[in-house]
Amino acid sequence: MNPEERLQRYAELAVRVGANVQSGQPVGVWAHVDQAPVARAIARESYRAGAGTVFVHYRDNHIRRAAIELGPTEQLGTSPEHVIDWVRRFDEGPTAFIQLSGDPEPTLFADLDQELVGKSEPLDFRRAWIPHVANRAVNWTIVAAPTEGWAQTVFGEPDLDRLWQAVATATRLDAPDPVAAWQEHIATLKARAAALDERGFDAVRFRGPGTDLTVGLLRDSRWLCATFTTRDGVEHLPNIPTEEIFTSPDWRRTEGVVRSTYPLAVSGTVVNDLEVRFENGRIVDLRASSGEEVLQHQLETDEQAHFLGEVALVDGTSAVKRTGLVFRDTLFDENASCHIAYGNGLPMTVDGTDGKGPDELLERGVNVSGAHTDFMIGGVEVEVDGLTSSGEAVPLLRADVWQLQS
Amino acid sequence: MNPEERLQRYAELAVRVGANVQSGQPVGVWAHVDQAPVARAIARESYRAGAGTVFVHYRDNHIRRAAIELGPTEQLGTSPEHVIDWVRRFDEGPTAFIQLSGDPEPTLFADLDQELVGKSEPLDFRRAWIPHVANRAVNWTIVAAPTEGWAQTVFGEPDLDRLWQAVATATRLDAPDPVAAWQEHIATLKARAAALDERGFDAVRFRGPGTDLTVGLLRDSRWLCATFTTRDGVEHLPNIPTEEIFTSPDWRRTEGVVRSTYPLAVSGTVVNDLEVRFENGRIVDLRASSGEEVLQHQLETDEQAHFLGEVALVDGTSAVKRTGLVFRDTLFDENASCHIAYGNGLPMTVDGTDGKGPDELLERGVNVSGAHTDFMIGGVEVEVDGLTSSGEAVPLLRADVWQLQS
Repeated sequence: MNPEERLQRYAELAVRVGANVQSGQPVGVWAHVDQAPVARAIARESYRAGAGTVFVHYRDNHIRRAAIELGPTEQLGTSPEHVIDWVRRFDEGPTAFIQLSGDPEPTLFADLDQELVGKSEPLDFRRAWIPHVANRAVNWTIVAAPTEGWAQTVFGEPDLDRLWQAVATATRLDAPDPVAAWQEHIATLKARAAALDERGFDAVRFRGPGTDLTVGLLRDSRWLCATFTTRDGVEHLPNIPTEEIFTSPDWRRTEGVVRSTYPLAVSGTVVNDLEVRFENGRIVDLRASSGEEVLQHQLETDEQAHFLGEVALVDGTSAVKRTGLVFRDTLFDENASCHIAYGNGLPMTVDGTDGKGPDELLERGVNVSGAHTDFMIGGVEVEVDGLTSSGEAVPLLRADVWQLQS
Repeated sequence: MNPEERLQRYAELAVRVGANVQSGQPVGVWAHVDQAPVARAIARESYRAGAGTVFVHYRDNHIRRAAIELGPTEQLGTSPEHVIDWVRRFDEGPTAFIQLSGDPEPTLFADLDQELVGKSEPLDFRRAWIPHVANRAVNWTIVAAPTEGWAQTVFGEPDLDRLWQAVATATRLDAPDPVAAWQEHIATLKARAAALDERGFDAVRFRGPGTDLTVGLLRDSRWLCATFTTRDGVEHLPNIPTEEIFTSPDWRRTEGVVRSTYPLAVSGTVVNDLEVRFENGRIVDLRASSGEEVLQHQLETDEQAHFLGEVALVDGTSAVKRTGLVFRDTLFDENASCHIAYGNGLPMTVDGTDGKGPDELLERGVNVSGAHTDFMIGGVEVEVDGLTSSGEAVPLLRADVWQLQS
């Protein structure tokens, strides 16, 4: 597969399977400046799929760096009003939204005051976006765009072609028929989710080096995976790749300690050796050997940022895991390993929450926050059990091999 | 001067002398994706100058190309609503606006249907912008950003450093003290404008190969140059470089034929061998050996697009002219040579037009249009005279040497 063909197939996957762009829809693409080649291929494929208009919003972390270093502190983290307005109105149309992941310069902010870096996160953008997810208003996807900068981060050298090969493996682009490969993979994930739902576990327990964590589940939650369906009936694949089966835990019932098993790239900084302790659901201690301040600042977003919003299971057959790489990008790394996220929960995993406000969601056990940060806690050394309401432990993962059969 | 120092001095010129960014102002930058290095330097310098926020709006002609080739025709030329809204509200704040010129790929659309290329021009963006100029609401500047793509166009090879050297010459960046050099240059231009105003010519006549054109002037117009002052009293330099003395002609009184003396880069196409004939002020014939369709489409913007909005005089001492280059960028090439523009006029050159509406401006002889395209008509072979109301011809330029003394 030559590079042009690969890019074209990748764009097809993003547009046709990922966002599933509908005829006449406006399409919004959110990309770093360095990701222009992928954004352009996606724009072309979107028009081929019948898009009415395509707008690429290019962001540039160097401009953000300028603001952190030289701008007035009180303006940090505020996006221009017209950009927020653009996002807020995605449900008109609606706009199909494609976000490009894979930070071209993940350590760009590493030498800066980390408190200011945290303050500079565009939380208002996230706040405008989150309701569309909760309301299933928009068909969307996140895919990554290989760049030399990202390759430098992964391999220590700007080997763009090698990164493209790894991404092709992780996204099944190297399968003879990628779309068919995705259909088969989605069926496998859905069978596992159904098996979990059938058992109706009360909690999930993770045990491994530095980890002994119990995450309480909700009685009326379901395990979801792979595809979402909008309220207009458009099925889309929000993450490419996706290997996880996930749900919204009971934010009030997380207990214990957990050590992350992958570095976490966030806000231009890489967080290493993250350790978190929960009591009565709340994060009471968080530390890391690097990048801790950025996470501390995220926790300050609001009180509910201290509670879990997501728990997700991933086994060793993961196509991301098979690459053997740490991508230093959450979209990929979270799909190589079990993970949890503090911050906003996932109402679509809990029955009867459609259209409910924050108070009712919290009352139902679904967390509500302006933050949502995933971190990876799985691996061959981590045992995962489902706990029944009577206290029985049922193996879910051993040595990264899926145990539960439907 | 090493490249970093040069870029830094260039950003200073754009921010401090060009837009003259004021403390606390929001700053908007309009740049091509490939111009990111210059946009970033300008963002940093803007913050140093006290900017409240800096937003860089990156545009990408490859996305526009995708729309022309593959998108629905009826959507061409429409910008996203939120972008227009951003521009429309520049007068709140007000926003200091810095536009980067120097198309990184001026022939990107050359192989496309030129009628569609014309339709894809973001005229709505221009329509939202023009009132801010007319109302003197915003301090703004246009500066160019050297890129390998532009260097390829100028030199036939992507010699970025050579283009930077040429731009440094054309913008007086190579002077020991560029700011002082600009002050002196501005004083020279102002003296010439004053001499022209003193004579109160009735018309300007251009004669040369393929050219015999008389442009009628307004009784109460003035010749302007170099700096504008906003209604808030902020003096700024709208073009860097600028070598021209210009005014708004009487749109009803242009007669004759004119042949352009430079290629004209517009909308991803280069227009060559442009010839235009005027009768009773109106363009009755326009032809070119390449790119004609794009200009024809511009003329269709509205009826008044067929009439002149600007006439400008430039002599051979121009720093742009001294480079001996054709930059294939109007910002530079128009400052190497006398030029005229069809389309929107310049009310600020005519006394008593502040705040007047379109009808009144037209009545006063100032053109009003959604279009404004400059093309170059001067050179050593073109003689320029000022015509008095009694019909006397006073030499203004001979062999590109300025003749009129104050």
